[in-house]
Amino acid sequence: MSVYTSVSESALADWLRRYSLGELVELKGIAAGITNTNYFVTTTHGRYVLTLFEVLKLDELPFYLELMSHLARHGVACPAPVADHTDAFASLLEGKPACLVSCLAGGDVAAPSPVQCRAVGEMLAQMHLAGATYRRKMDNPRGPAWWSKTAEALYDKMPVVDAAMLREEVHYQDSHRFTHLPSGVIHADLFKDNVLMDGDKIAGFIDFYYACNDFLLYDVAIALNDWARRNDDDIDSDRARALIEGYQSVRPFSADEVKAWPVMLRAGALRFWVSRLLDFYHPADGELTFIKDPGVFQRLIAHHRDRTDFWL
Amino acid sequence: MSVYTSVSESALADWLRRYSLGELVELKGIAAGITNTNYFVTTTHGRYVLTLFEVLKLDELPFYLELMSHLARHGVACPAPVADHTDAFASLLEGKPACLVSCLAGGDVAAPSPVQCRAVGEMLAQMHLAGATYRRKMDNPRGPAWWSKTAEALYDKMPVVDAAMLREEVHYQDSHRFTHLPSGVIHADLFKDNVLMDGDKIAGFIDFYYACNDFLLYDVAIALNDWARRNDDDIDSDRARALIEGYQSVRPFSADEVKAWPVMLRAGALRFWVSRLLDFYHPADGELTFIKDPGVFQRLIAHHRDRTDFWL
Repeated sequence: MSVYTSVSESALADWLRRYSLGELVELKGIAAGITNTNYFVTTTHGRYVLTLFEVLKLDELPFYLELMSHLARHGVACPAPVADHTDAFASLLEGKPACLVSCLAGGDVAAPSPVQCRAVGEMLAQMHLAGATYRRKMDNPRGPAWWSKTAEALYDKMPVVDAAMLREEVHYQDSHRFTHLPSGVIHADLFKDNVLMDGDKIAGFIDFYYACNDFLLYDVAIALNDWARRNDDDIDSDRARALIEGYQSVRPFSADEVKAWPVMLRAGALRFWVSRLLDFYHPADGELTFIKDPGVFQRLIAHHRDRTDFWL
Repeated sequence: MSVYTSVSESALADWLRRYSLGELVELKGIAAGITNTNYFVTTTHGRYVLTLFEVLKLDELPFYLELMSHLARHGVACPAPVADHTDAFASLLEGKPACLVSCLAGGDVAAPSPVQCRAVGEMLAQMHLAGATYRRKMDNPRGPAWWSKTAEALYDKMPVVDAAMLREEVHYQDSHRFTHLPSGVIHADLFKDNVLMDGDKIAGFIDFYYACNDFLLYDVAIALNDWARRNDDDIDSDRARALIEGYQSVRPFSADEVKAWPVMLRAGALRFWVSRLLDFYHPADGELTFIKDPGVFQRLIAHHRDRTDFWL
């Protein structure tokens, strides 16, 4: 359930006068999303998704909303934020920062085919190319400095064997840092539930609120770690290769990226292992129902240590 | 037929690599539009309209394409231009300035209902509100100075009675100029064939290549003169009132606008009477097949002189 903030029809109808979108016809809560409140809003002009931000502040939103607008303007499949009469993408509604974005077709897939993985890889590369002209910058708040510091607060709470493995992984990443890889704006959370598929086509990448500037290859690793991950948390080779092939059909990897790939696959897993461990050992108030199994990424890293068949 | 410039699939496939739109699937000429060449372009990502500009130059396009992008970003129904990897909306293809815009549903209607006229009025007002934050400016190249000068070159060629009426109209407009009316960016050519309707909804305003800065009320007059015009070139009162009502549901007219309305209705007709007379008496090479009857607007002005039932 993702309606934390209740929006009244009359408050929304008033707020909609900020926009060129016609009159309110229907308002309907959306039961998806963890950190924000989402509604479907139908007006006389069309259908939109209303998001009320429960954590992000109004002045933190431009990076994300202008990024989505920039990408949509370049034909990358993603929701396009709608600007109001003051040319702003967000303003307060029911006391929360709120925005409207275009409503996309499609839905997420639990068991993607290699063809769908290929489409995700291709669109991700298109997103990276289109992002090259995006002017705002955002450091990755969950990079190596973050996971090293966060891990320090976890070792004592974890079983000894797991803590040892986590230490090893943090150390492995520390000793394999790269400075010359192509970088740019990345989605940083392109899991299956953040892509709407319409059959084998990408209807849209969604939920850009972890987007930041980092290595493009890291984004590919994060996506592959979810899209090609089997139920036993090992990687499906066909799906992995399809995603890589789709990506390279648009942007072939450089020699440096080919070399960095095995490390990046583990970095993409480590970041989520650490965040899930954090949620597990230090849950925020009222978030218990959303805690996801950190073991998924621990097992995935163990597999990555052995596998070489989908290296570049 | 509106394919003046032939585009080869191989040239287009190359050109499409400038964009994040996937691979070319199909290219198909569009038999509509007078001054530009239009194609439907289907790629692996979606369907777009390709326009090659036969008259406008590359450096003249930003005003129009950025306007469409601005309006689409505000939720106004119109095609959204797609930006390429250099962040440009247009570049040369087959030696002509060319752009891609999103493909809209719907089609134009020959005999609109009052409900459809209301929707056009409402969307036009939304467009005027959304246009308020558009930064580029363009003087109206077909304003009073243009029609006065153009008429001078026509009087001698026209039958005496018609020339006398044209002189009267030009003089009438000269003696009723306004300086305090709300102004902004206007479509300036919102005829029925420049609106795609999807049932009773506006799928999109198209063909913004006469857009400019002028009185908002003038835009309403131009639209009404076509949307509410009957086959006998008089005005259908129901359709006229519906369009006005739709417009005012979003932006009520000021007292000055109410006063100016009868003059503006005739100004909106005079501009097209003069341009059609110009095409008729001074046709450009090869444009003979497109000449439209100037008498339509002469008869319309005659009716406007008598009618008061849809004054504001």
